[in-house]
Amino acid sequence: MAITGVLRPGHAVLRVLDLDESVHFYTEVLGLKETGRDKSGRVYFKCWDERDHHSFVIRKADRAGMDCFGFKVQNAAVLNTLEGRLREYGVVTERVPAGEMLETGERVRFHLPTGHLIELYAEKTSVGNGLGDMNPEAWLADQKGISPIRMDHALIYGGDIDGNRKLFEDVLDFTLVERVKLEDGVTDLATWLTCSNKAHDIAMVRHSEDNKLHHVSFLLETWEQVLRAADIMSMNRVSIDIGPTRHGITRGTTIYFFDPSGNRLETFSGGYQWYPDHHPITWTWDQVGRGIFYHDRKLNEAFLSVLT
Amino acid sequence: MAITGVLRPGHAVLRVLDLDESVHFYTEVLGLKETGRDKSGRVYFKCWDERDHHSFVIRKADRAGMDCFGFKVQNAAVLNTLEGRLREYGVVTERVPAGEMLETGERVRFHLPTGHLIELYAEKTSVGNGLGDMNPEAWLADQKGISPIRMDHALIYGGDIDGNRKLFEDVLDFTLVERVKLEDGVTDLATWLTCSNKAHDIAMVRHSEDNKLHHVSFLLETWEQVLRAADIMSMNRVSIDIGPTRHGITRGTTIYFFDPSGNRLETFSGGYQWYPDHHPITWTWDQVGRGIFYHDRKLNEAFLSVLT
Amino acid sequence: MAITGVLRPGHAVLRVLDLDESVHFYTEVLGLKETGRDKSGRVYFKCWDERDHHSFVIRKADRAGMDCFGFKVQNAAVLNTLEGRLREYGVVTERVPAGEMLETGERVRFHLPTGHLIELYAEKTSVGNGLGDMNPEAWLADQKGISPIRMDHALIYGGDIDGNRKLFEDVLDFTLVERVKLEDGVTDLATWLTCSNKAHDIAMVRHSEDNKLHHVSFLLETWEQVLRAADIMSMNRVSIDIGPTRHGITRGTTIYFFDPSGNRLETFSGGYQWYPDHHPITWTWDQVGRGIFYHDRKLNEAFLSVLT
Amino acid sequence: MAITGVLRPGHAVLRVLDLDESVHFYTEVLGLKETGRDKSGRVYFKCWDERDHHSFVIRKADRAGMDCFGFKVQNAAVLNTLEGRLREYGVVTERVPAGEMLETGERVRFHLPTGHLIELYAEKTSVGNGLGDMNPEAWLADQKGISPIRMDHALIYGGDIDGNRKLFEDVLDFTLVERVKLEDGVTDLATWLTCSNKAHDIAMVRHSEDNKLHHVSFLLETWEQVLRAADIMSMNRVSIDIGPTRHGITRGTTIYFFDPSGNRLETFSGGYQWYPDHHPITWTWDQVGRGIFYHDRKLNEAFLSVLT
Repeated sequence: MAITGVLRPGHAVLRVLDLDESVHFYTEVLGLKETGRDKSGRVYFKCWDERDHHSFVIRKADRAGMDCFGFKVQNAAVLNTLEGRLREYGVVTERVPAGEMLETGERVRFHLPTGHLIELYAEKTSVGNGLGDMNPEAWLADQKGISPIRMDHALIYGGDIDGNRKLFEDVLDFTLVERVKLEDGVTDLATWLTCSNKAHDIAMVRHSEDNKLHHVSFLLETWEQVLRAADIMSMNRVSIDIGPTRHGITRGTTIYFFDPSGNRLETFSGGYQWYPDHHPITWTWDQVGRGIFYHDRKLNEAFLSVLT
Repeated sequence: MAITGVLRPGHAVLRVLDLDESVHFYTEVLGLKETGRDKSGRVYFKCWDERDHHSFVIRKADRAGMDCFGFKVQNAAVLNTLEGRLREYGVVTERVPAGEMLETGERVRFHLPTGHLIELYAEKTSVGNGLGDMNPEAWLADQKGISPIRMDHALIYGGDIDGNRKLFEDVLDFTLVERVKLEDGVTDLATWLTCSNKAHDIAMVRHSEDNKLHHVSFLLETWEQVLRAADIMSMNRVSIDIGPTRHGITRGTTIYFFDPSGNRLETFSGGYQWYPDHHPITWTWDQVGRGIFYHDRKLNEAFLSVLT
Repeated sequence: MAITGVLRPGHAVLRVLDLDESVHFYTEVLGLKETGRDKSGRVYFKCWDERDHHSFVIRKADRAGMDCFGFKVQNAAVLNTLEGRLREYGVVTERVPAGEMLETGERVRFHLPTGHLIELYAEKTSVGNGLGDMNPEAWLADQKGISPIRMDHALIYGGDIDGNRKLFEDVLDFTLVERVKLEDGVTDLATWLTCSNKAHDIAMVRHSEDNKLHHVSFLLETWEQVLRAADIMSMNRVSIDIGPTRHGITRGTTIYFFDPSGNRLETFSGGYQWYPDHHPITWTWDQVGRGIFYHDRKLNEAFLSVLT
Repeated sequence: MAITGVLRPGHAVLRVLDLDESVHFYTEVLGLKETGRDKSGRVYFKCWDERDHHSFVIRKADRAGMDCFGFKVQNAAVLNTLEGRLREYGVVTERVPAGEMLETGERVRFHLPTGHLIELYAEKTSVGNGLGDMNPEAWLADQKGISPIRMDHALIYGGDIDGNRKLFEDVLDFTLVERVKLEDGVTDLATWLTCSNKAHDIAMVRHSEDNKLHHVSFLLETWEQVLRAADIMSMNRVSIDIGPTRHGITRGTTIYFFDPSGNRLETFSGGYQWYPDHHPITWTWDQVGRGIFYHDRKLNEAFLSVLT
């Protein structure tokens, strides 16, 4: 395989304050498809063009935020290998039995240096994208709401993002794609890492508090779909943080917005495709505004402070 | 590395009938950047967002067609490994010394069962995309013509495409993404293979004559850029084969057109991103028209017959 | 009023072979909204962003084609004035009583020199576009199918298109926007006329048989919506004549396709906006292909022969 | 003529602080074409698809702002008629001789109740859009910068916008398209008026100070061109006020930005087309934010305060 090891972000599990309101938001406004509920109260969703059973899960809780972020790996052997490498690296891992999460095989769990819970798994039931594997149409006719293509990545906040990066690079074979430097020109404020041809599969920002979520991101096909998404948000009075605009970092076009519980989400489109022989891109402190929001060229107040 | 082995198509070398006319076409109309000429008469080009010295090369000859198609591999060790695997598989390989192609390291050459010459290489001088690696702008302001993002893939014609597929899969770790079946429901008319998250890095169609080129393809960013490309072709009276339209296979939007020597090229955009856990898609013979040209739903005469 | 006299194309009445099949096609695939049926069997439709009760009407008949094409005029006084001018010009006119067509005021009917039946009317019930006149949203959330913005224009075929043009210009205050000349450089093969800022409100092609319809056209908002329309046509196995492509004439992007009865329709987008001080554009015979289909640069066989 | 009287906004004359810097900005960044300079120091520009000699003029002054805004009328007879109607209405008019403005016929000048200087004229040399009137290409290949299609409208600020509206409606045959009400539900905060199929040819906001300019607006073809415009602004470090975003009012997509002298400009695209039988749209005070900026749903600080 030329794509090996960790394949992609596979699921984000988020806490919400009101389950019914959230299910309505995620199905009718964001346009995910509900694919199941389990006895512990979790509700499972997938995006229209995803094949696996789910990529997004919510559960009711007293405060918003992200329980865990999962990555699908190539196969069971790779899962074992990565678990071994994590332990060898000094990381405590835990096995969650197959089926604890609906339609999902055994998961290997561990905490990042920033306190975030990460899961690796090799198996999740393929339910298909509704087009079939024979003579498919170009897209699914029956869609509603914003209807992203896939859950794409997350941006997390915490203290030891250097430790995070080292772990993702040395153990999970991720690669640095872009970084923002603090005023000292040495310390990373933020890093964007990939395990694929994507410009980012996970990103992280240095922050005083650990285990915080900045946003979970969903992919749209075009800039016109980004406009349509913003329109749908306005029609539904969804709180928009910023956008439509472009990131300098990754070049993607974007909207940041909030779910009813205050969890920040992103719908984005575009950006370049990355290869391992590309040089990482560095943003200096004086240009961080343009790096994050290419048109405004300054950070908005919320970017560094509003987290769940 | 989660992206390993063969990284991507790295260069296509095409024969043209008139060098000056072709250089004008490839720089002013297609909008590639000329990056060098060598003493053997080859002219080198790159697309604006490519980092390596060149991805497209032409040389004057009596008849049009493709001399060879090259893939960049991860590093020199991978190059050695892949050479060893090719030989073990029974393929005769040849080493071309570094520098024989401008700014390019040693290449390992071999012929596919369909007679096409393939090159693998690990080193090519990175000249950058003109934006730099520090605080880059979102795109290069100084572009002309159609100006694709990158050379993306080739579609080749020949007899033993089963042998090709087996070699690409077993030796070079490519994977089957889509296929079209002949009327017998068993034999492949065509296959699309990937070594990345792209829906295809190389494709092949079964044909009575070996070593033929159907097209070399260049990536555009959006469907609006596809329209702009078709407009520029018309303004320059470039011969368009078909398009703008959509492929059912890969879902990409596309134009097929011809360079002044009759080599077919493609500018395309979009399509889905592939992962190794996706099931390959199969098109049956009665749906091949819709698979190739999603809107016309029939093959045009040229598709199966006009080759170089 | 700076917009006076004839305002715009107001309705096309087409004959279809199977009413149920046609209603399904026009509502589910083209995505018009059915707004009523009358006792004579006519079914009425509107596009989502139109305010008036209907812009498209079908009735069952033994052969396809267009019964009549209607224009809305500024008010009842203008209707009287135009009727007077028509009669003075030597045209026989007929008054059809209010209500004969659902929710529509009195119509003044007459035949063009090419035999087509034209209707003028000043009143049609405004049912609104569903967004209201106070604090409207940007578009209607509840749409299905292709869902054009409005019925936009028609292209008719017949013998005396010079007479048509003279009548539209001299009596109805239309203006010539573009024309195609025959090989003699003198005779018009086709003309495009406007009564607004649109590049065309009606167009006509010289043809041996009178009273024929080439197509009725519906406006889409963007080139991406043109692609989506072509996709929806393919998903529903609608017969596409040509497209997506661009017209040289008007610059609009377009798809020609057929309803289940063989009536040609168009979904198009874009094109320039016209003002009375613009010079008309002339296309010479040798460039007619590029004028009609800007990318193919040749007429397809159907353009001059397939009519209803 | 079905389009009669006042045809369209024909020119805006703006004051700039530094002529060379401004010429560079308007030609290289906004991408207008300089078409002439006169002995009084005015520099003339046109957009690529405009036919007349100029639509935008700058002159050096000590403070930024707009000298006057001109409308082209149908012909000399209409100019005389409108002058007569203005005088009859009690407006003082002045004739400026032909040639005082380059390539422009006699102008009739008058002041609006808000103090703005308006000019009407019937003649301006047609220099064409560079495509010719015979067999034109779809667009001009040689463009640079943002390159809008045309100067489209202006938004002006002043006290007696009721008087403005009455004058535009009663004398110049403009029509109200949209309006925003103040908290009292009676008084207009702002009105959008048209003399064509456009959603607005001029707009005005109630303000304590007379004769102020909010922005002059330029039309782009698509939402993708709006993104490209914002990118070009960022590459050139142009000050962006807000955008890319959408207006609820007119539905257009937009960027507000500033020229080097602080004059606000707009590049926009889209929006609906208006007809005289449409009902005006009213926005209530509590929804004004969504009306002005559909996605942010609140006015930014600059909207009501930063003027020239």
